[in-house]
Amino acid sequence: MELIRVATVESPLTDRAAAPKQGDEGAPDATLAFEEGFAPALDGVAEGDELLLLTWLDRASRDVLRVHPRSDTSRPEQGVFATRSPDRPNPLGLHRVTVRALDGPRMRVSGLEALDGTPVVDVKPVLGGVAER
Amino acid sequence: MELIRVATVESPLTDRAAAPKQGDEGAPDATLAFEEGFAPALDGVAEGDELLLLTWLDRASRDVLRVHPRSDTSRPEQGVFATRSPDRPNPLGLHRVTVRALDGPRMRVSGLEALDGTPVVDVKPVLGGVAER
Repeated sequence: MELIRVATVESPLTDRAAAPKQGDEGAPDATLAFEEGFAPALDGVAEGDELLLLTWLDRASRDVLRVHPRSDTSRPEQGVFATRSPDRPNPLGLHRVTVRALDGPRMRVSGLEALDGTPVVDVKPVLGGVAER
Repeated sequence: MELIRVATVESPLTDRAAAPKQGDEGAPDATLAFEEGFAPALDGVAEGDELLLLTWLDRASRDVLRVHPRSDTSRPEQGVFATRSPDRPNPLGLHRVTVRALDGPRMRVSGLEALDGTPVVDVKPVLGGVAER
């Protein structure tokens, strides 16, 4: 089960400690730079679309099974599958974004909390008009 | 970017052609059998919770960039990133389910369209009470 990089996040965010924990908590716009050859896979994606991005959170720790939610040590530890902690056995990020602009293999998206350089591994449409951030 | 299996889907669905395309299109309940050692990661997950499962769709084709949406050849081809086709560069499935029962490393979930034997690679809570199927 080997993932390939389909795009790379270009973002002003470089420091995990300073990054928002979720995209709707003040995260900046970001650009996704798609790898060569993947432009055909974007056919049908348009400005204004709501998308789900799956990323590989490459600065996370994979050997963590329990965390304090939102790193708040006043809250009791929980299993990582009950939280959105980036630290988890497979550090996959799930992000809801809006497409601001699309120019060939470069896509500008709204409010993304992923750090600069983060690999994007999948892009999916939001179904049914409902939202998962 | 190598994924590890955290659980395996046990389902009556064995044939991709016969499986529902989405969980809310008549998919049966399924059981997730977690690998040894991952029970602590489930601490805090409870019956009735809404979860997002990420799966590795191991019977999908990874070299497909364009498809007819919902395999309907009367619809024009689109890029796979504009669809939920299982055929895509990284065949990751995203499924919204409800926890029916949880007994140690075995979790019963509602309406899951993944096939029997599909690896589960991540489990996340739904945030903000909103739904992504």
